[in-house]
Amino acid sequence: MKYSVIGTGAIGGYYGAKLANAGFDVEFLLHSDYQYVKANGLKVLSCSGDFFLDKPKVFSSTEQMSKADVVLVGLKSVNQEVLYKILPPLLKEDTLVVLIQNGIGLEEDLQKKFPKLYIAAGLAFICSKKTQPGIIEHMFYGSINLGNFSCKDKSLFNNVLTDFSKAGIQAQEVEYYQARWKKAVWNMPFNGMTVVLNTTTDKLLKNPDTEKLIYEQMKEVIDAAQMLKVQGIDYSFADQMMEMTRAMIPYSPSMKLDYDFKRPMEIYYLYTRPILEAQKVGYQMKKLSMLEAELKFLS
Amino acid sequence: MKYSVIGTGAIGGYYGAKLANAGFDVEFLLHSDYQYVKANGLKVLSCSGDFFLDKPKVFSSTEQMSKADVVLVGLKSVNQEVLYKILPPLLKEDTLVVLIQNGIGLEEDLQKKFPKLYIAAGLAFICSKKTQPGIIEHMFYGSINLGNFSCKDKSLFNNVLTDFSKAGIQAQEVEYYQARWKKAVWNMPFNGMTVVLNTTTDKLLKNPDTEKLIYEQMKEVIDAAQMLKVQGIDYSFADQMMEMTRAMIPYSPSMKLDYDFKRPMEIYYLYTRPILEAQKVGYQMKKLSMLEAELKFLS
Repeated sequence: MKYSVIGTGAIGGYYGAKLANAGFDVEFLLHSDYQYVKANGLKVLSCSGDFFLDKPKVFSSTEQMSKADVVLVGLKSVNQEVLYKILPPLLKEDTLVVLIQNGIGLEEDLQKKFPKLYIAAGLAFICSKKTQPGIIEHMFYGSINLGNFSCKDKSLFNNVLTDFSKAGIQAQEVEYYQARWKKAVWNMPFNGMTVVLNTTTDKLLKNPDTEKLIYEQMKEVIDAAQMLKVQGIDYSFADQMMEMTRAMIPYSPSMKLDYDFKRPMEIYYLYTRPILEAQKVGYQMKKLSMLEAELKFLS
Repeated sequence: MKYSVIGTGAIGGYYGAKLANAGFDVEFLLHSDYQYVKANGLKVLSCSGDFFLDKPKVFSSTEQMSKADVVLVGLKSVNQEVLYKILPPLLKEDTLVVLIQNGIGLEEDLQKKFPKLYIAAGLAFICSKKTQPGIIEHMFYGSINLGNFSCKDKSLFNNVLTDFSKAGIQAQEVEYYQARWKKAVWNMPFNGMTVVLNTTTDKLLKNPDTEKLIYEQMKEVIDAAQMLKVQGIDYSFADQMMEMTRAMIPYSPSMKLDYDFKRPMEIYYLYTRPILEAQKVGYQMKKLSMLEAELKFLS
């Protein structure tokens, strides 16, 4: 199996490097640190063991890369048009593209552009960051859930799960739409609220007013999911997410980091799109659309 | 008629000084700049003409002040307990207390503490600030609406209106509850949103997302007012407020100034109380209670 990683950052870079380190054939597309990694390799400082790729197969353009069995997309969703443009050179008839990205509607939009493409959702549960060129720091967690969106070759999909496991990545199959909405239950409240109030997850939960607000926002996501006939999410899931977050160390979600480092925020797929999906079935996410407006003002 | 001003700041100080300057008998309670004003007088730099009170009657405690026919309260509503404590020495049987303060529920709460007191609401439409000790800067507007809450002596109430007019202050009678809620239509969106997004009124209206949000928040206040059977407020009033604000110069509402200068914000009477009043009649102000939580987090 030939893997390609588009977007060798904190997420794509981590999973790709894990696969390469386990001996799988992985090609990496790099942008800003292409020259550095080509000369110096790719280092992963990981809570579960550091490792170093001496000579990773790195490229600065997909035109120079081989066709892939599996493409792992680790790009931010702020510029999917770029993905649509650089993807074709990697595609065979049965290439599987795994979108390790945040939000709702990513698979649907990609499918519209490439109607026959095999697509899966990759939901990463990981805290990692690229601290400097060629260095990925992996702080905690690291599992990934894969949801099959349109991969007709079930054995190909399963092989990816197996390869991830062989590479030491905890990976399991999930129902893609449910998984996307479950992730939104956490993502929608915490990403935006940490930006608007310039804070971290722990402080939002220590203050009784924002704690209540976060919980109500979670319930809005769950209400929306239920209106959209997503199975298996009820308010008890919000309770779980609250408990899980209380148990976490103080945390800045990806959107907060994007905002702090003056990078574009993933407002469309994290907010606008799920809000629109809910509206289509008659549900107004009132607090989260207010948060969306606040974020758009700040962006 | 003997007037007393409690809270000789940007608002109380302005109206009191206008009355004193017109020859009315006015006593001023001062706190931080008592010594300065006693020694140097009180200056009003006003868009409608500067004036100077050479020897205003100033006091540092209500215990030294005379009993008053009318008490003008210009204190921030963040510490009404202080008002309840310092008010008694000024009161006769038929003293009228005019609360020139922002929010909903102020008159009701004061009445509970002083069941027989004559109370009126004072709704100031003015932009002024105390820039330094003894100096009040009056930038624009300056009218005041008075709403009778519990003044049984109608001629006393009317005399206040007349005195204000004689002092060059545009003053008219309004229905107190409607006036309080009308003011909330502007106050609730703009005060909080300028704080949370660290901005001014004009920028909120130039951005289409926050413009829409502000309008929706105004409609929440109007929905609440209608549920509370407040007469004569419908969505067209929100349109008027949007238009008026678009025509205004870039503006920082009082809560934004309080936040910037690290003074306590008037969250209770501006947000918590109207939200609770609406809840009592079954209406949830969803976006404004989110704003309330954000403000409480920031306070």
